[in-house]
Amino acid sequence: MPPTTGLFSASLCRRLFNQSHFIRHRRRLHSEIEYPLTHPIYTIWASNTSLGKTLVSAGLSMSFLSSSAQLARKRFLYLKPIQTGFPDDSDSRFVYRKFSEFFAFKPLPFSVYASNCVLKASIPAANQVLGNGIAGGSAMNEDFGVEVAEKGGSVGGGLENVLWYEERKLQGSESNETELFPVSEVVCKTMYGWNEAVSPHLAAEREEAIVMDSEVLDMLKICLGNGVVGTSCGTEEEIMCVIETAGGVASPGPSGSLQCDLYRPFRLPAILVGDGRLGGISGTISAYESLKLRGYDVAAVIFEDNGLMNEVPLSSYFRNRVPVLVLPSIPKDISDDLISWFDKSQTVFTSLKEIMLSAFLERTQRLLDMPKKACDIFWWPFTQHKLVPEEKVTVIDSRCGENFAVHKSFDWISQQFDACASWWTQGPDATLQIELARDMGYTAARYGHVMFPENVYEPALELAELLLEGVGKGKCPRFYFSDNGSTAVEIALKMAFRKFLSDSKVLLDLVNADMNGRSMDLKVLALRGSYHGDTLGAMEAQAPSPYTGFLQQPWYRGRGLFLDPPTVSMYDGTWEVRLPEKMQFEKSGDGCLSFSSRDEIFEMSRDSSGLADLYTSFILQELMLLSDSNGLSHIGALIIEPGKNAIKHRVTQGAGGMEMIDPLYQRVLVKECKRRKIPVIFDEVFTGFWRLGRESAAEMLHCQPDIACYAKLMTGGIIPLAATLASDAVFEAFTGDSKLKALLHGHSYSAHAMGCAAAAKSVKWFKDCKTNMNLMSESRLLQELWDAELVAQISLLPVVHRVVALGTLCAIELLAEGSNAGYASTYASALLKKLREDGIYMRPLGNVIYLMCGPCTSPDTCRGLLEKVHARIHEFGQQEDKSVLPLHREY
Amino acid sequence: MPPTTGLFSASLCRRLFNQSHFIRHRRRLHSEIEYPLTHPIYTIWASNTSLGKTLVSAGLSMSFLSSSAQLARKRFLYLKPIQTGFPDDSDSRFVYRKFSEFFAFKPLPFSVYASNCVLKASIPAANQVLGNGIAGGSAMNEDFGVEVAEKGGSVGGGLENVLWYEERKLQGSESNETELFPVSEVVCKTMYGWNEAVSPHLAAEREEAIVMDSEVLDMLKICLGNGVVGTSCGTEEEIMCVIETAGGVASPGPSGSLQCDLYRPFRLPAILVGDGRLGGISGTISAYESLKLRGYDVAAVIFEDNGLMNEVPLSSYFRNRVPVLVLPSIPKDISDDLISWFDKSQTVFTSLKEIMLSAFLERTQRLLDMPKKACDIFWWPFTQHKLVPEEKVTVIDSRCGENFAVHKSFDWISQQFDACASWWTQGPDATLQIELARDMGYTAARYGHVMFPENVYEPALELAELLLEGVGKGKCPRFYFSDNGSTAVEIALKMAFRKFLSDSKVLLDLVNADMNGRSMDLKVLALRGSYHGDTLGAMEAQAPSPYTGFLQQPWYRGRGLFLDPPTVSMYDGTWEVRLPEKMQFEKSGDGCLSFSSRDEIFEMSRDSSGLADLYTSFILQELMLLSDSNGLSHIGALIIEPGKNAIKHRVTQGAGGMEMIDPLYQRVLVKECKRRKIPVIFDEVFTGFWRLGRESAAEMLHCQPDIACYAKLMTGGIIPLAATLASDAVFEAFTGDSKLKALLHGHSYSAHAMGCAAAAKSVKWFKDCKTNMNLMSESRLLQELWDAELVAQISLLPVVHRVVALGTLCAIELLAEGSNAGYASTYASALLKKLREDGIYMRPLGNVIYLMCGPCTSPDTCRGLLEKVHARIHEFGQQEDKSVLPLHREY
Repeated sequence: MPPTTGLFSASLCRRLFNQSHFIRHRRRLHSEIEYPLTHPIYTIWASNTSLGKTLVSAGLSMSFLSSSAQLARKRFLYLKPIQTGFPDDSDSRFVYRKFSEFFAFKPLPFSVYASNCVLKASIPAANQVLGNGIAGGSAMNEDFGVEVAEKGGSVGGGLENVLWYEERKLQGSESNETELFPVSEVVCKTMYGWNEAVSPHLAAEREEAIVMDSEVLDMLKICLGNGVVGTSCGTEEEIMCVIETAGGVASPGPSGSLQCDLYRPFRLPAILVGDGRLGGISGTISAYESLKLRGYDVAAVIFEDNGLMNEVPLSSYFRNRVPVLVLPSIPKDISDDLISWFDKSQTVFTSLKEIMLSAFLERTQRLLDMPKKACDIFWWPFTQHKLVPEEKVTVIDSRCGENFAVHKSFDWISQQFDACASWWTQGPDATLQIELARDMGYTAARYGHVMFPENVYEPALELAELLLEGVGKGKCPRFYFSDNGSTAVEIALKMAFRKFLSDSKVLLDLVNADMNGRSMDLKVLALRGSYHGDTLGAMEAQAPSPYTGFLQQPWYRGRGLFLDPPTVSMYDGTWEVRLPEKMQFEKSGDGCLSFSSRDEIFEMSRDSSGLADLYTSFILQELMLLSDSNGLSHIGALIIEPGKNAIKHRVTQGAGGMEMIDPLYQRVLVKECKRRKIPVIFDEVFTGFWRLGRESAAEMLHCQPDIACYAKLMTGGIIPLAATLASDAVFEAFTGDSKLKALLHGHSYSAHAMGCAAAAKSVKWFKDCKTNMNLMSESRLLQELWDAELVAQISLLPVVHRVVALGTLCAIELLAEGSNAGYASTYASALLKKLREDGIYMRPLGNVIYLMCGPCTSPDTCRGLLEKVHARIHEFGQQEDKSVLPLHREY
Repeated sequence: MPPTTGLFSASLCRRLFNQSHFIRHRRRLHSEIEYPLTHPIYTIWASNTSLGKTLVSAGLSMSFLSSSAQLARKRFLYLKPIQTGFPDDSDSRFVYRKFSEFFAFKPLPFSVYASNCVLKASIPAANQVLGNGIAGGSAMNEDFGVEVAEKGGSVGGGLENVLWYEERKLQGSESNETELFPVSEVVCKTMYGWNEAVSPHLAAEREEAIVMDSEVLDMLKICLGNGVVGTSCGTEEEIMCVIETAGGVASPGPSGSLQCDLYRPFRLPAILVGDGRLGGISGTISAYESLKLRGYDVAAVIFEDNGLMNEVPLSSYFRNRVPVLVLPSIPKDISDDLISWFDKSQTVFTSLKEIMLSAFLERTQRLLDMPKKACDIFWWPFTQHKLVPEEKVTVIDSRCGENFAVHKSFDWISQQFDACASWWTQGPDATLQIELARDMGYTAARYGHVMFPENVYEPALELAELLLEGVGKGKCPRFYFSDNGSTAVEIALKMAFRKFLSDSKVLLDLVNADMNGRSMDLKVLALRGSYHGDTLGAMEAQAPSPYTGFLQQPWYRGRGLFLDPPTVSMYDGTWEVRLPEKMQFEKSGDGCLSFSSRDEIFEMSRDSSGLADLYTSFILQELMLLSDSNGLSHIGALIIEPGKNAIKHRVTQGAGGMEMIDPLYQRVLVKECKRRKIPVIFDEVFTGFWRLGRESAAEMLHCQPDIACYAKLMTGGIIPLAATLASDAVFEAFTGDSKLKALLHGHSYSAHAMGCAAAAKSVKWFKDCKTNMNLMSESRLLQELWDAELVAQISLLPVVHRVVALGTLCAIELLAEGSNAGYASTYASALLKKLREDGIYMRPLGNVIYLMCGPCTSPDTCRGLLEKVHARIHEFGQQEDKSVLPLHREY
């Protein structure tokens, strides 16, 4: 068959050069992972080396091109990201050549342009390409068309651009020479080549040409995008893309990362090439399980027949949920050109192709259908469904570390940074997520769940021991487990009240005399605007608001004495404490107190300031008022959120969301309560486990509670678990001879093994310098994640009222008035919509917006987020007519 | 070296015969898995075939025997449970011979008796043993001592007892001929042999000699037990045992079960023989992950050096938590006797042995320490710690399906049936548990947790769709997710009250006029003795009891109208409805109503009975009384547990625990509430998902609620998740233009992906005839799990007051008076202690004891449990002086 030359190879050259340029250009602008959903893209994995991934890829190219629908133009894209043993071994060349040979053996009715190229190679590999006699320009190869091999120049890191490509036009049996454009294409590409025929991590190291994971992913993203770019020629087109990995599923890539981890951010559907030999059942199942343990979907398993009927136990293992296909035995004779084997295997490859196509269609259809189904049957919490039309629903395909992969309506899967940390629960980076996945599998297999009372099992004990050394250090030697922050708080209240009553013989006698009369009114001392959960008991510790209204919770009474606290924020570049109205009057002046740095606010020396006295006198005044009101009311507990305190997202008047309370005020409050034997509860559900830069926010206050509540980030943000820690003195108030004196509260999954195992892993991970690079050794403190200069700049923007940046949190209150302010405001909607386009998934608390990262998120990532936010707020401020903003969209 | 004969081989014969007898004897009595913790027992796994498991085992035998402490007698036990290619291939013979040869090469100072035997073989394998020229008696083998080969006769199932053994005394270099008893021993055993050199499942099938998993486990248990039996000779003794698996970790065993699943009930610690070749990193990691996904602990990874430095990426993967050892390259020359290789490898094997010993010691020490630590730092729910001394704490090593593996103080790991279903949460059999483990790993890797409101992701949608087709069928098209039964009930109450108010314009106007005055008193209609959770809102729906006392929860008011319901049980062999006192008076007679069968009680025809009228009039009377009391009280919701209703474990007076309410009464109640537009809540937290034999207990009542709550068994009992289902009409009461009208309740982990994925899997598993053998096709009903005859017999025992058996539950109330009755009673303690010795882990509700299995538990297992319970209660009733029972022990 005569190869074509000239014109076409020149266009190929152009394409390659453009692409290289494109790569350099794009890398600076984008780093989010994305890929098109317009056509199937599959990754071909194998349970070991040399099981035939390339044969399967080549077979697919043949069956895809020869599928019956001939009206559409077809494009088959084969990518080999990592190739060792190059150029002697080149899987992309193998696919290119076998396709061409097969075409010669069984021509298709239409013509096909086939090509193969390599993009980059290590210097030894690149040199050998040129040493192969095809160097320095183009050459004709009798069998395989035109070949061009050029060194494209070094790109650094031991790599060169290697413009080696080959192409040919395969003349269709029913086509003629006058056809104007290529009807169909088979495009084969090797992304990176190394010379030694060993594992990529070894080859990369030995050839001093290590490629970072992010580079591989960026290049892959571009190659996948190119599969769609330039196809808008109006003709109908069918595309299929396969990506062939190197070695086994968990073989290391060039950086040393396991390939199943390396490619994880794409989470492309998988085809697993299994092992038909003796022992192959085990290897195939294990490889499948390693893929599942990284969240991959496996569409089919295929392997070579070795007469051992491995498909029987494999099908039984898969319970018919994953199709198992068997290929005819591969000729062992090295001189066999395999063409008749490919021919014999076409029915199997056609089945495989059909499975891949239908799994793809099923997936995309499902993604399209999901928003409507969600609107029809979900009842989302805190959501007015009437304000969430179908098109506003986000379809989340997966999470990788701090990022969501979301389905965009215009047929892309695209990454967004989860900047609301999924309701403040999230912490893991991608590595911890995979470790947690394995631990979750292990714990489910080892325990599932086993019951807690009177029993002990490793995860619960390990977690308790870790908490004892961590957040519970020196304060709380007893651990009570429940399911969420709300139940942890209810338990804390029950504990505190009992302790309070036990400490007073007079009150205890009163209770014993009149247990059911309930004439005594036990109240909780709490801060106005604070939030401790949504169950009734937790709600009672919260000041009245529309969220506690009769139509929301008719049983709510508000059993607290609620104080107005002084708050802390950065205003126009300066950290300030702002006093509540009443105090301002006493203080004289405007009640503002400026600080030169945020850290100054946390200094213990402030204890002897005049402000401390002011706080004390106001607190005493409030306590006095209560005890005067009648003889029946008593404060039985203090509950605060240390460090940062009031999450004012429930307050509709004035400022909404995320306030930081003056730590001095909280310390004074704790001191006064301790003097009165009022048990102190720290609600650290939000603040615990590095959320605010320290493992326990109590460390910032320099004082200890009697009881503390933890949840959210404790499990690494993977499943619900809560712990209420109590001092031994509190515990003692419940011991006695009768079971009826015990704390008779419990939940079915108390201290469930899964939650405890996740928490044990995460607690260790976050506080280990080896796994958490943000940890400043010895100091038990995270490094500053939010660039101080950028934070100050944001606070100076005219449209910004104030900023709070602490630990993993950066909250920004936008200046807003009237209905634009407060929780129900939709003022920030348009801004957040723009930020989602930038790849940042944020949610507002009314006119307050916030970024939240994990304890291990790099300051670089945080800086990138802040820059985008700064730019968008700036833009937002410059819009002259804000009235056109949509009114009813909430994120 | 001269072999010994005579006396010793005869004793070996005896041991073998005794053992066979022992096996037959034990199999009838015991089926629980157990193994000693007096010495290390490890399983040797490999990531593929032919990687050197047997070489590692042989090497360990050498380094264990030659360890420096020479005072103690040493025993090395090598077990090969499954051997194919037998007798040509025999790994136990290989270990025996290599040990002997190595001894000859490097004699130890003391003498060692070495032996090898096979217990059972397929007929072709057995025939070949005898055809090998060593048949019919004993023979001397010049190199390897005495050999005996005899057919021991068929044992059925295509197997024969094959008494083939070889033994020799290896004379120590410093011992003399006069020593009286063997100082040390190396015992090698093959449990089952098949002839073909293929995977065990194929060999077993082709040779028609399939061995069930339970037989393998029974035999293994005996062999492991024998390692300790007969060693009480007073001398100090060191034992190590290794069990070598066949092929790779997930290679099928003789029944077709994967070996990693087959041996799972023992959960013995593992050594993984990895792969040092190209591609071996991937295979080793995947095999490790398959072991972890079954809950195994891997103490070390060891593999043969192939010059590829596979240990570097492997150590990096393991983050130094699993030691990685490298063996010298194995000579490829088939004539090499490997002795010098073994010699060269001794340092590696010694390291491996040390790792195994120290991991063993760490494990056993931890198990011993756990009870004290637990008592020191845990705060168990519903537990009076003063009544739980250290020695009463159960150490749970793991769970496999319905069984716990617990650590017994006399150094055994032993199985107990989890008959309290870990607070009624459990359902999975061993197979579902492993499937769930893989799904948990997958879901954690794919999603971790992602936030719910305004989003959609597969597990949440899949679960909602499944619930729509299952428990929600035809009633509840909206799904609200939370964390546990208690929060699900609080959400249900909030929903019901809003719906109730929305339905009455008069009341709604009143609320809007006086929202904060709260003069209106909304009450919930509930049954006395019922329980809906421990958070304050759920507690308010519960009648007052000591558990709601001021010292437990000072904010409790009891905002309900609580009715006394008629109950159902079997008394002395007859099913009866018993009426509450007040109704008895009206009814005339003793208020008992007998039924010929339990099913009769559920018949709809009872709706037209006089009893229905009686129920109606009593309910109306109560409602009338309330509305007369003042104009401010309204019933805003009805909450009941359909089918079975009141879990009276909170009631201390009279009968405690597990009552079944007359379904007719509940139906009448629902009807009367619906007539009054009072929203009806079904609390199915306990009863849902086949707990009572149907997917939804509502199916028994033949009426639908407006709102239903699910939790516990929904996730298959693995992690917390709850769902509140509501009708569209209820949902509509929350829609409007303002966010403030929405249901403003939520938890951080709302609809968390892990919980939804576990639930989706379990819901499907339980209702699929292919996975749940108890499901009677078409009828949506479980078959009867509790043998009706045995249940009746138990109810006839003099010491038994009543029995309720329904679905997965069988509750038995013991006759008790005074302080022996009720929740705080310890009356049943001695009885339950005996049952734990029988391998049944039960917990009492005062004088009520219960058995609870999973929806897939076989009736045979249930029968076995009932038989033991019957026998023990019978025995309990015959004890004359019950006053000696311990008073303060609760299970």
